[in-house]
Amino acid sequence: MKQHLIIGIAGGSGSGKTTLAENIARHFGNEVSVIRHDNYYKAQPNLSYEQRAQMNYDHPSAFDSELLLRHLDALKAGRAVDGPVYDYAQHDRSTETVRIESTDVIILEGILIFENADILKRLDMKIYVDTDADVRIVRRILRDVEQRGRSLESVISQYLATVKPMHEAFVEPSKKKADIIIPEGGKNPVAYGMIINRIETYLSE
Amino acid sequence: MKQHLIIGIAGGSGSGKTTLAENIARHFGNEVSVIRHDNYYKAQPNLSYEQRAQMNYDHPSAFDSELLLRHLDALKAGRAVDGPVYDYAQHDRSTETVRIESTDVIILEGILIFENADILKRLDMKIYVDTDADVRIVRRILRDVEQRGRSLESVISQYLATVKPMHEAFVEPSKKKADIIIPEGGKNPVAYGMIINRIETYLSE
Repeated sequence: MKQHLIIGIAGGSGSGKTTLAENIARHFGNEVSVIRHDNYYKAQPNLSYEQRAQMNYDHPSAFDSELLLRHLDALKAGRAVDGPVYDYAQHDRSTETVRIESTDVIILEGILIFENADILKRLDMKIYVDTDADVRIVRRILRDVEQRGRSLESVISQYLATVKPMHEAFVEPSKKKADIIIPEGGKNPVAYGMIINRIETYLSE
Repeated sequence: MKQHLIIGIAGGSGSGKTTLAENIARHFGNEVSVIRHDNYYKAQPNLSYEQRAQMNYDHPSAFDSELLLRHLDALKAGRAVDGPVYDYAQHDRSTETVRIESTDVIILEGILIFENADILKRLDMKIYVDTDADVRIVRRILRDVEQRGRSLESVISQYLATVKPMHEAFVEPSKKKADIIIPEGGKNPVAYGMIINRIETYLSE
C-alpha cells in the first residue's frame, strides 16, 4: 500500500504559508488535501465571549493537538475525517465541519506545527516560509483591517502583546526543524516549482 | 534549443554546500557540471608568496569575476571551457585547468556567488545552505588541520580575522537572494530529494 506524503508548511503570521498551501492544492486539485491548523483551536464551551477574546491564540496551548493527531493518524490510515472549523468572530469552534479526504498527499499548514514533537514525527517534508517581520505585520494589518473589519489599534496591540512575543518564543525557533526554508512563500516561483516537482514525482511513483 | 539550468549553491565556509554540490553531481554523472567559485580566485603573478598569504580571501574582491562571467556565458552558449584551478599551497592560480562541459545543468558553488549582481542574474535557481556558525568552524578546523595540515592556531586566527567578519558582511546578507534555504546541506535527505526531483524533471522536459 502506498504511504501518504504529509507535508508541513509553517511560518509566522503573514509569512505567505497559507497562500503557498492554497496554490499547491489548486495545482493538484483532488489529489492534495489541506489541513489548516487554525481550525484546530480548542473549543471553549465553558468560557464567555469576553474570556475567549482575551485568550492568547499564538501560544501552542491554544490548539487541540490531541484532535489533530487523531485526524492525522486517521488520514494516514486511509480514512477521511470531518475536521473542525473555527469561527473567528465567536473565538470558538463552529458547529460546521469540513471533510478532509485521505489523499496521497496531505498538507498541514499553521504557525506552530513544527513546535509540537508529536506533529513533527508525522511530517515527511517540513517547509518553513520565512518572511521579514515588517512585511508580515503589514500583511496582517491589511488582512485584519480590510478583510476582517477590525480596528487598526486592536490589530497592532494584539500583534505587540501576543503575536510578536509568541513568534519569537515558539515560531522562529521551530525553523530549526525545517527541511527547507522558503523566503516569501506566496511569491517564490523557483521554490514553488521545486515543491510541485516533488509532489508530481511522488504521485507518479 | 534547450536552455541551460544554472543552479547556484552558496553558504558559509563549512556549511556543507560543496558536499551538496558533489552529491548532486555524482547522482547525475555527466549530465551535470560543477563550477567551484574557489577556483576563480584571482591570479597574483606580481605578488610574493608572503603578500599572497596575507590577502583576505573571504572578500568579494579576491575573485576573478570577469573570468567567471565569461565562462558562465560560454557554457550557456553551448561551449565547453577550460576552468582555472587554484593552488591553495601557493595561494595562487595553478598552471592546470579543468575542463567544464556545457551540460544541460550546471552548478556553481561558492561562499560569495550571491553577493555579485552579475553572477546572480545568470542563476536560474539559488540555493543557500544554512548551517550554524559553531558547526561551520568545527568543520573548518577538522578540514584544515587534519586534511590540509595547517596549525590549529592559524586556522582559528584566520577564522576570526577574515572568515567570520566577511561572512557577516557579505555571505549572511546574501542569503536574502536565495530561492530556497537548506539547513545542513550535506545531511538533509528531504531537501536533497527535492533538488534531485527538480533536476530530473528539467532533464526530461
